[in-house]
Amino acid sequence: MRTSESSTPMRKQMQDYILSLQDQIVTAFESLDPTAPKFKRDNWVREQGGLGQSCVFSVPHGQKTESPTVLEKGGVNISVVHGTLPPAAVKQMRADHSSLPAPEDLPPKGLPFFAAGLSLVVHPRNPHAPTVHCNYRYFEITEPAVQGSTDQPKIIAWWFGGGADLTPSYLYTEDAVHFHSTLKSACDGHSTALYPGFKKWCDEYFFIPHRKETRGVGGLFFDDLCDEPHARLSGAEHPRSPSTIFGLIQSLGNAFVPSYLPILIKRHSLPFTLEQRRWQLLRRGRYVEFNLVYDRGTKFGLMTPGARIESILMSLPEEARWEYMCDVGEGEEGRETEEGKLLEVLRKPRDWL
Amino acid sequence: MRTSESSTPMRKQMQDYILSLQDQIVTAFESLDPTAPKFKRDNWVREQGGLGQSCVFSVPHGQKTESPTVLEKGGVNISVVHGTLPPAAVKQMRADHSSLPAPEDLPPKGLPFFAAGLSLVVHPRNPHAPTVHCNYRYFEITEPAVQGSTDQPKIIAWWFGGGADLTPSYLYTEDAVHFHSTLKSACDGHSTALYPGFKKWCDEYFFIPHRKETRGVGGLFFDDLCDEPHARLSGAEHPRSPSTIFGLIQSLGNAFVPSYLPILIKRHSLPFTLEQRRWQLLRRGRYVEFNLVYDRGTKFGLMTPGARIESILMSLPEEARWEYMCDVGEGEEGRETEEGKLLEVLRKPRDWL
Repeated sequence: MRTSESSTPMRKQMQDYILSLQDQIVTAFESLDPTAPKFKRDNWVREQGGLGQSCVFSVPHGQKTESPTVLEKGGVNISVVHGTLPPAAVKQMRADHSSLPAPEDLPPKGLPFFAAGLSLVVHPRNPHAPTVHCNYRYFEITEPAVQGSTDQPKIIAWWFGGGADLTPSYLYTEDAVHFHSTLKSACDGHSTALYPGFKKWCDEYFFIPHRKETRGVGGLFFDDLCDEPHARLSGAEHPRSPSTIFGLIQSLGNAFVPSYLPILIKRHSLPFTLEQRRWQLLRRGRYVEFNLVYDRGTKFGLMTPGARIESILMSLPEEARWEYMCDVGEGEEGRETEEGKLLEVLRKPRDWL
Repeated sequence: MRTSESSTPMRKQMQDYILSLQDQIVTAFESLDPTAPKFKRDNWVREQGGLGQSCVFSVPHGQKTESPTVLEKGGVNISVVHGTLPPAAVKQMRADHSSLPAPEDLPPKGLPFFAAGLSLVVHPRNPHAPTVHCNYRYFEITEPAVQGSTDQPKIIAWWFGGGADLTPSYLYTEDAVHFHSTLKSACDGHSTALYPGFKKWCDEYFFIPHRKETRGVGGLFFDDLCDEPHARLSGAEHPRSPSTIFGLIQSLGNAFVPSYLPILIKRHSLPFTLEQRRWQLLRRGRYVEFNLVYDRGTKFGLMTPGARIESILMSLPEEARWEYMCDVGEGEEGRETEEGKLLEVLRKPRDWL
């Protein structure tokens, strides 16, 4: 199996792409708010194999800024890691990747893996401006390297995953529509089956069972996209070669700035009250609950030896709030509140387009 | 097997005790801060079987108080629940309770259980005053009820669990010593083997692996205390009958107020800076991380159908903070900070007595 029709290995193509995407996104945020502190760029190396670059925004505590910054906290991280997957992990992945060997045929140490991805979470300061998240990743499992050989080990399985979702504190229907339609356009050029399947998956994935609500107004979520049929796409045509799926990933990655920046520009300087800030912090508490209790990426990161905790937990907001039996948004009889309008959508995901 | 030498079933004895302990503790907090709002008392009923009373402290948002309240947020909850444990759960418990039937002898629906406990978390407002937690619980597994019979079903296994731990933002050695020595005294009357075993268990349990630090300065933690030998007590004599273990639980429950209130009285009105408040909120972020990612009680609660989420998550602080690559407490070369003194203890648990 070849990872790409190009002679450049997909690992390298993906790594180059996410590096340029990171730069493009960080530049867009920095240009929007020229008097704010710049994103802090940290390069790191993982002892067990891998490297990354974190670009993180925050205002150093106690530092006065000319005017309130557009962002409160945000991170745009890339990581490129490799290592060995234990047999139990390979076994789990076999359900979606039939090219992986049966448990009895696995080397006792497991199989080498490679993963490259970009992960982004941005929490703006203004309660009317939504939090946004996106993540695009490429995963490879190979045969063990042959000692002394300089050849790339043979790829046994490969796939792409990713998605983007929007988490407002106040519902602006037009913002949800803009976000979803930008993502849908990016998908549609590759297959019109993608958006409906991945939109539904997103609503299911970003669900907080103990709160019976979704994290936000959704977007896209997908995993295990490769040359095999995909359960979520119910037999529809969709990209299946490394290069065509990589094309989709690039369309989606490039859609991030146009999907989100216009919303941020429209909302970041709206006037707001202390009550609205309080509601935003309560919603950020829910964000923390989802990320720490349910998010697979966060959980996987916390359990990975040698993982860079600061990069994994950069997704957490600068501040969050929990009140006992909080009734903000529940409204009074016959009177709907702005907070209640959001809750309604979180409790019953809507089709935006 | 009988649960108690008294003719009153242990379920009832424990339920009565935790009700009176809850009242005693809430009264102590309310007396300390007479101008503060009272604890809010909520009675609730669990559809699937059970009831509880939550007593929760918070200052309603936006409400002006005469002076800052001693507590910022706190909850003292009791719950008395019963239901059916699925076979997989019973199987897991069998490691510590050999009286439970082997998996092949279990009724397909599982076995009835009963649980009664008190759980408390208090976050004071002043960064010099530590957060405190305690929990005492009784668990019973019985044979399925015989239809038409009014007899109590036979108890197959029973045990007690619990503990208390202290989480300061600033280290006052004398406070840690007072807390530990009060708990040790409560244990020593029952067996001097208890404190050393349970102190060590506490340091191990309240450990945040991804931060490589403990949640606080420890205290006691124990589980599965019953008539069988206990792995953590390395063969030492310890209470083994329902009534003697219940006696220990009462000693520990009654020790809560004397273990903590004197510390709170000493610290709640010390002057503090905004920088110290910031550090307190960062530490509260760690508290959230422990509770949502690792705490067994919280995880069990979040997964339990029909559980009362507000009571489970009342342990979360009103506010918490996360900063990327925060270096508060790391100090400069050759200069130890107050924050650094705490971190040192969290990274290397100390024997306080």
